[in-house]
Amino acid sequence: MSPEDFRSSGHQVVDMIADYLRDIRDLPVLPDVQPGELIDALPAAGPEKGESMDAILADFRKLIVPGITHWNHPRFFAYFSISASGPGILGEMLAAALNVNHMLWKTSPAATELEQVTLGWLRQWLGLPDNFFGIIHDTASTGSLHAILAARELAAPEVRLTGEHPPLTLYASEHAHSSIDRGALAAGIGLENVRHVPSDDEFRMRPDALAAMIEADLAAGRKPFCVVATAGTTSTTSVDHVEDIGVIARRYKLWFHIDAAYAGSAALLEEHRHILDGAAQADSLVMNPHKWLFTPVDLSILYTRRPDVMRRMLSLEEAPPYLQAAEQDRAVNLADYSLALGRRFRSLKLWFVLRYFGREGIAKILRGHMAMARNLARQIAGDSRFEVAAPVVFSLVCFRYRGSDEENRNLLGRINAGGRAFLSGTTLHGKFVLRLAIGNVATSEDDVRQTWEWIRSSVLPATGSPAAEPLNPL
Amino acid sequence: MSPEDFRSSGHQVVDMIADYLRDIRDLPVLPDVQPGELIDALPAAGPEKGESMDAILADFRKLIVPGITHWNHPRFFAYFSISASGPGILGEMLAAALNVNHMLWKTSPAATELEQVTLGWLRQWLGLPDNFFGIIHDTASTGSLHAILAARELAAPEVRLTGEHPPLTLYASEHAHSSIDRGALAAGIGLENVRHVPSDDEFRMRPDALAAMIEADLAAGRKPFCVVATAGTTSTTSVDHVEDIGVIARRYKLWFHIDAAYAGSAALLEEHRHILDGAAQADSLVMNPHKWLFTPVDLSILYTRRPDVMRRMLSLEEAPPYLQAAEQDRAVNLADYSLALGRRFRSLKLWFVLRYFGREGIAKILRGHMAMARNLARQIAGDSRFEVAAPVVFSLVCFRYRGSDEENRNLLGRINAGGRAFLSGTTLHGKFVLRLAIGNVATSEDDVRQTWEWIRSSVLPATGSPAAEPLNPL
Repeated sequence: MSPEDFRSSGHQVVDMIADYLRDIRDLPVLPDVQPGELIDALPAAGPEKGESMDAILADFRKLIVPGITHWNHPRFFAYFSISASGPGILGEMLAAALNVNHMLWKTSPAATELEQVTLGWLRQWLGLPDNFFGIIHDTASTGSLHAILAARELAAPEVRLTGEHPPLTLYASEHAHSSIDRGALAAGIGLENVRHVPSDDEFRMRPDALAAMIEADLAAGRKPFCVVATAGTTSTTSVDHVEDIGVIARRYKLWFHIDAAYAGSAALLEEHRHILDGAAQADSLVMNPHKWLFTPVDLSILYTRRPDVMRRMLSLEEAPPYLQAAEQDRAVNLADYSLALGRRFRSLKLWFVLRYFGREGIAKILRGHMAMARNLARQIAGDSRFEVAAPVVFSLVCFRYRGSDEENRNLLGRINAGGRAFLSGTTLHGKFVLRLAIGNVATSEDDVRQTWEWIRSSVLPATGSPAAEPLNPL
Repeated sequence: MSPEDFRSSGHQVVDMIADYLRDIRDLPVLPDVQPGELIDALPAAGPEKGESMDAILADFRKLIVPGITHWNHPRFFAYFSISASGPGILGEMLAAALNVNHMLWKTSPAATELEQVTLGWLRQWLGLPDNFFGIIHDTASTGSLHAILAARELAAPEVRLTGEHPPLTLYASEHAHSSIDRGALAAGIGLENVRHVPSDDEFRMRPDALAAMIEADLAAGRKPFCVVATAGTTSTTSVDHVEDIGVIARRYKLWFHIDAAYAGSAALLEEHRHILDGAAQADSLVMNPHKWLFTPVDLSILYTRRPDVMRRMLSLEEAPPYLQAAEQDRAVNLADYSLALGRRFRSLKLWFVLRYFGREGIAKILRGHMAMARNLARQIAGDSRFEVAAPVVFSLVCFRYRGSDEENRNLLGRINAGGRAFLSGTTLHGKFVLRLAIGNVATSEDDVRQTWEWIRSSVLPATGSPAAEPLNPL
């Protein structure tokens, strides 16, 4: 493709994107398609001859867009709501064109250093200490896997060479993300050795239960090595007692990892900074700008106080010759700290986002999301047919219809089938509840208000219920 | 950022990219910067107030571009040469705007199914069997880690639950990529249990040596569980004897993984299809469209004949409730097969690339790269000061100046310092050699010819040599 052909198609694509962002509310959030529909619509074999970009873009509109779940829709309220903001998309465009792989400093000094600079800015805004080293991974799953591997390296350095594993045990809240279990699984810890610590009424890990489990494992001859606190659990965005857990981690010499993938962003606000009180004592922390910081997927940050351990846990006895690079002062080779050797230039979009919005702009949007969530919770509490099912800590509202799990599941199904909004569900205290997560940069008060109206109108009239019939005067 | 502001900045960025692609040969491939230069040039703290996109883009031009190592430059010949082709960039632009996370089928049916369709097309072109299941990972390091974890699951299923590891041993060529060692390390195998099998004169793993090492480990009570063949080693692009290694893998019931990250693309050509003869018997195979298939980073494919094992190795005793999804016929939930829960819509750019070029177009470009490499090797062989240091199997030429390692390292340094081309080095048979890898979609015969001239002219004249002085007639 010649540069001039790229220019022409590129302008066409920018207009498609601008139109998409402008008209996105007209699209159903969840597509109305059946499994296999796109597979059947596309050729079973790839094309022998090249095709025109116009034909490809036409198929994109006709075949792909109708099968997309629109994560960038302002009424995508499922899981955690995310955003590809304008500056974030522009950053990805340029990163794609540069096509950098900054595995070593010299394979792209600017990409290596911009990663350090942007992660340094965020570190300051989060109130984390200067000695926290930051690196970008694709997802928090990957970042937490690296934290668990580092914890294993510190507690049982013999594993790296011999593969002989002491009976290690890891601790996390029963509400911790499944990626912690999967990370332990990949590291060869064994699922039986992952302890799911009970939580309190507000879904926060109980430090007393944590300490008791550690003591029981020690008494049984096991080797506790890592504890994970969650700041913003997936089910309810509850925040574990970071400071108290840190004290326990130090007492028992455990690697202390904090999963702040979602709520890390909230700590940018002074009034929520306290959720990371005690985080300075952590060995590692993940937070996801691609979650609640208007940055397109993927971009997750792993901060660590122990980059030396991260580096050692991945080091081979001899570096292969094609990776040898002169270690220079200030020249960091990021691949030394990452299982993935190749590194995409992800910090560019983050730099664009942080500069375009500025700290004040980001804070304003986050506060807006939290105000919308509180307001929605008030409306839910004011409707006797519904109840709020968990504290509204940030911008997620968990609620349920006062009825059976089946009625709530059916209600969720009807809301989502309407296509105007997309919510998800979870189970709290054994009951199925609905989750409405606010986080998209373009979500407005109106979006939330209308969605609440649709939810209310999706409740089926109680058929055959006496109250629905006129009272029989006899 | 309003859709109209995005439109305006987006058009500006498209013009920047088109100009970049047009004028890229005017830029030095390697930047002339010192470590810390960008860090010092940028503010130590992030901005309080938002800034205009114009100001940000101006800084991008002024501060970032001069510090970039231009991997998309047609004279980037180091490591493996890669390409962000026009259609690939356009695909990334749209993927960034959609911002999909297709962890589950329903969280984006079209992204899930387009991944299956594009990987199916490539599977056919590579001559792999229909029962190979494909999934996209960021890099081959990640794909190979998943292969090693699956191998561990099959050989020692107790590890997943108990964390008790039998004495597993893994086998790969001494020329295998470091990601194999790192994958084994992460999986808790222990580096001492990774066998580096000796290679023959053409840098291919010796099957007889492999079998002998397996026998020795069995005799010592160890448990061989995985063998990795490489199709296109990083140092020389040598291709292991896939068929013979497969026979040994079956004999000893080892998981058979093929690292075809680079040379997988070559197997798209009929005349090179044979390099994957025997791959139908493999349990898994990685190949990287972001390497030699004109697709921007990152996009690596893992094919496997055993998706059931991949799924089982990551499964938790109970799926966390927010991930529960009704398993429907044909509705694949890709996160079941991947440590990273979040999934970027990577197949879109691959679809654009495969359709824009078509199989014929791709084959023509790959054949052109190989012809350039053969031609260069002929020229090197024709200059008595140089020697070709390894067989030219595809599009990589390894060569050296007939002198000391120091002279060769200094020669490489002078070539790269010139900024007009970027080569890398490796060590073969104990000697330092230069590597010139051809693979960028825009590289021309002229680029290679000029680079060879610069290499020749970078050889220092032999100082103080008698031939350089006029002969003394007395």
